[in-house]
Amino acid sequence: MRNKARESNAGIALRLQDIVDRLGGTLRGPGKTLIKRVASLKNAGKGEISFLSDLRYRPLLQESRASAVILPADSPIFTTLPAIFCKNPYLYFAEVAILLAPKVVLSPGRHPAAIVEDDARVSPMARIDAGAYVGHRTKIEAGAIIGPGCVLSDDVSIGKDTRLHANVTIYEKCSIGQRGIVHSGAVIGADGFGMAQKDGRWLKIPQTGRVLIGDDVEIGANTAIDRGALDDTIIDDGVKLDNLIQVAHNVRIGAHTAIAGCVGIAGSAIIGRHCTIGGGAVILGHLEIADKVHISAATLITKSIRSPGTYTGAFPFDEHSQWGRTAVAIKNLAEVSMRVRELVKSAGTSTVRPAEPATRKARKEK
Amino acid sequence: MRNKARESNAGIALRLQDIVDRLGGTLRGPGKTLIKRVASLKNAGKGEISFLSDLRYRPLLQESRASAVILPADSPIFTTLPAIFCKNPYLYFAEVAILLAPKVVLSPGRHPAAIVEDDARVSPMARIDAGAYVGHRTKIEAGAIIGPGCVLSDDVSIGKDTRLHANVTIYEKCSIGQRGIVHSGAVIGADGFGMAQKDGRWLKIPQTGRVLIGDDVEIGANTAIDRGALDDTIIDDGVKLDNLIQVAHNVRIGAHTAIAGCVGIAGSAIIGRHCTIGGGAVILGHLEIADKVHISAATLITKSIRSPGTYTGAFPFDEHSQWGRTAVAIKNLAEVSMRVRELVKSAGTSTVRPAEPATRKARKEK
Amino acid sequence: MRNKARESNAGIALRLQDIVDRLGGTLRGPGKTLIKRVASLKNAGKGEISFLSDLRYRPLLQESRASAVILPADSPIFTTLPAIFCKNPYLYFAEVAILLAPKVVLSPGRHPAAIVEDDARVSPMARIDAGAYVGHRTKIEAGAIIGPGCVLSDDVSIGKDTRLHANVTIYEKCSIGQRGIVHSGAVIGADGFGMAQKDGRWLKIPQTGRVLIGDDVEIGANTAIDRGALDDTIIDDGVKLDNLIQVAHNVRIGAHTAIAGCVGIAGSAIIGRHCTIGGGAVILGHLEIADKVHISAATLITKSIRSPGTYTGAFPFDEHSQWGRTAVAIKNLAEVSMRVRELVKSAGTSTVRPAEPATRKARKEK
Repeated sequence: MRNKARESNAGIALRLQDIVDRLGGTLRGPGKTLIKRVASLKNAGKGEISFLSDLRYRPLLQESRASAVILPADSPIFTTLPAIFCKNPYLYFAEVAILLAPKVVLSPGRHPAAIVEDDARVSPMARIDAGAYVGHRTKIEAGAIIGPGCVLSDDVSIGKDTRLHANVTIYEKCSIGQRGIVHSGAVIGADGFGMAQKDGRWLKIPQTGRVLIGDDVEIGANTAIDRGALDDTIIDDGVKLDNLIQVAHNVRIGAHTAIAGCVGIAGSAIIGRHCTIGGGAVILGHLEIADKVHISAATLITKSIRSPGTYTGAFPFDEHSQWGRTAVAIKNLAEVSMRVRELVKSAGTSTVRPAEPATRKARKEK
Repeated sequence: MRNKARESNAGIALRLQDIVDRLGGTLRGPGKTLIKRVASLKNAGKGEISFLSDLRYRPLLQESRASAVILPADSPIFTTLPAIFCKNPYLYFAEVAILLAPKVVLSPGRHPAAIVEDDARVSPMARIDAGAYVGHRTKIEAGAIIGPGCVLSDDVSIGKDTRLHANVTIYEKCSIGQRGIVHSGAVIGADGFGMAQKDGRWLKIPQTGRVLIGDDVEIGANTAIDRGALDDTIIDDGVKLDNLIQVAHNVRIGAHTAIAGCVGIAGSAIIGRHCTIGGGAVILGHLEIADKVHISAATLITKSIRSPGTYTGAFPFDEHSQWGRTAVAIKNLAEVSMRVRELVKSAGTSTVRPAEPATRKARKEK
Repeated sequence: MRNKARESNAGIALRLQDIVDRLGGTLRGPGKTLIKRVASLKNAGKGEISFLSDLRYRPLLQESRASAVILPADSPIFTTLPAIFCKNPYLYFAEVAILLAPKVVLSPGRHPAAIVEDDARVSPMARIDAGAYVGHRTKIEAGAIIGPGCVLSDDVSIGKDTRLHANVTIYEKCSIGQRGIVHSGAVIGADGFGMAQKDGRWLKIPQTGRVLIGDDVEIGANTAIDRGALDDTIIDDGVKLDNLIQVAHNVRIGAHTAIAGCVGIAGSAIIGRHCTIGGGAVILGHLEIADKVHISAATLITKSIRSPGTYTGAFPFDEHSQWGRTAVAIKNLAEVSMRVRELVKSAGTSTVRPAEPATRKARKEK
């Protein structure tokens, strides 16, 4: 088993015409141009294809030594390079990247240094790497890969073709669907932070729920998803979580939502489908976020969001000395605002015209 | 050893009267009602008990199919369900949950695939799981559980009945008291971030202190607690740390303080007893926080806090476009504040009345 | 191999004169005073040396029972203790600490419970601890230490004298230079968070770049550094990363930059040399930060910074009730600012004098 990891199609090459035949788009230039890899406009060379989505980067296109380039269907022609014109160059590029990516094929089997309990139900078509531990009654389906050093406790379920990279930990009774990817250091199913106070001490509330993860979910390195207290923590199909994210107990994340690194989500928050959450955002607990909500980086969400849209709350940065002056002004802001109201009142409506354009309050009243 | 993990009281059931006999409270309804599990009002069914603390949730109570419910002693009666009336329903519920929770009994012993140095001092009543490593002179007391893949370096000490879940790392000379719980991925005793600059490069300062952790401490998944530079980093009895928390070198956290996920605490900060710190807060170094201080989520603490109370500092979120206008206004805030002072001065005291109610400054002067 | 870890110079002691001979500075007092350890002013006793950099701490000096103390060259003499006067007491102290620190010498060799693929290229002078896994073609140079439970995938390269503490994960093709230190739980080379949207679902873009780490780099516990999407993620020589940091794909961090805990750096950000970034800061992607930029804790950087200097953006904390008033005022700030402009306009230049001292705008126009 040890020497069978290999890149099955290292050296694959597609002609431009092959690519267009598979993915669509309009080709301009010689269809027989060979493409072996995707690359950035800046670094691409012979045998490599790049793309341009944002016309601001067109100077990079002029200088690019790529063998071909993917361009927006309606773009004026800036280049003499062979080109594929399509609706969404970034997506097209992604699809070409997938076509050309070396597929790592890891042979199934159980490494002699893996420890698998006798009553675990491991498909012979799954792969269990060195030093991994698989607990009692844990079920691992065909095509799944359990990396070195992973620990799967009892009664865990890992779906078809799901890959756990090295050193992932899954607590008892949690499950992951098909085609998932879990990166190293991720911890799934640790106890939620549930406590009641008794005489100044904290009494631990047993956390008896599970973590249920759907299909096509990716979980980043060192991300933690806690098991539910009573009911389950649920991560729906197609959710993508970046690194170092905290998902507390009983959180529910709707399908196809993507969350960037370092986000913290407190207990019982319910997040909709097709949302995006920027890095470092903090979502408080016991609130609901609608579908198609986009939260900016480093934003604190303190209450439910009922309508799709983009929401932001970050303090703008500045040179330190100017920030210091601003910070002092903020400390006094409530008072200053009151003084302004007084001034407006004493100035009377004749001298101070109503603010234009529409202010926040006016807008809200519509 | 491998097949001995089991739930010793799966299927336990208590009569309502048994519960009241043990935990107090006033019973209304048939004392022989059997209770097997706790559950949320929404999901509870036959054999399950739920609770209501906040009267806003009373509609859930009306619809609940729980076999019994825990209610505040002084609450008007909203339900025909069998009920226990008590002072603190949430705490009572926690205590019932503890009574009913299946107790996982893991038999002591050393898994053949554990690696334990010959001079380690491991109680025969401790359990060392597969793939765990126990270093030289490390002491593990009775009832302790060292999960699969844990690494305990040399001269570590683990107290009675403390459980380390899978893949925990403890550096040399660190110690944990009794009845502790450490979740997967936690790292205790890595070097503090101590450096001096020399000719534009960083010189690493040896980190020779330890991490000393008291009794009844819980540490969340992927949380990191650094060893002290000279003196020790100290986590007092009963402290509860959630996931993905950073505790820097020489921090001291007082007894029974609870800290939510994603908090960062910088070097040499001293945090009092019975504090709570909300998720994503950042505490700067070399400052002191008094006992019974509550810090809100996502708040940056930049200086010592001398009095108990609640402290907050987060930027309110808004729709993105409105946030953009606010952000511009903040950049100009110091100037605007100055203009307001000028306006107030030129308006004179005759036209602008003193702000009421009491402003911050006035309040402070009292 | 198992019993050979030892502190080779436990019990080392240097005379003050030896220290001054090696590190410079001016000695006052008996050169034969023996020094065994460094310690804080507060806790130092016989055989221990401490330092004073900041004159505010001079009361601690008066009470210190240290055997000697390191003082600024130009400081008035506050103490009768033996003293070394030098230019930079903190740096001098660090250098003494390095002289006196017990050097842990770990003998080279391969633990029988380590799993090393046959085609790995491991120096006989490297050490591979229990339960570590070393993949195909991975190269480990002399003096390197691979701690218990580490997983090094295929084609990894670890330079001379680099130490990986327990439970570090390194993905395929990544490399670390010489004299590096990587703390437990760090994950190097996981996939970047690169996706394109197709019909409401996320399409994973293959992440085919690597992570390349220079010499003398330290990486904290549970920090994650993602591999590049196409090009590589690059961490330059002498960079120091604290715990729980997220470094996204294609980030570049310049030499000798130091980054504190809980920082998140988004994709393709380029950070200069000799920068410092405070704890909990968030750096957005696709921007550039110049050399010698200092970013304060908990600051969000939303755009490129072209000039050296210190930049800050954190919301000042306050008592919760006052914060509530401030937060409301901030929600209305754009409107209040507009009203102030109206008031200034209607007041005319005759009654409202130009703001002094120089406002932000005036300063910028110079």
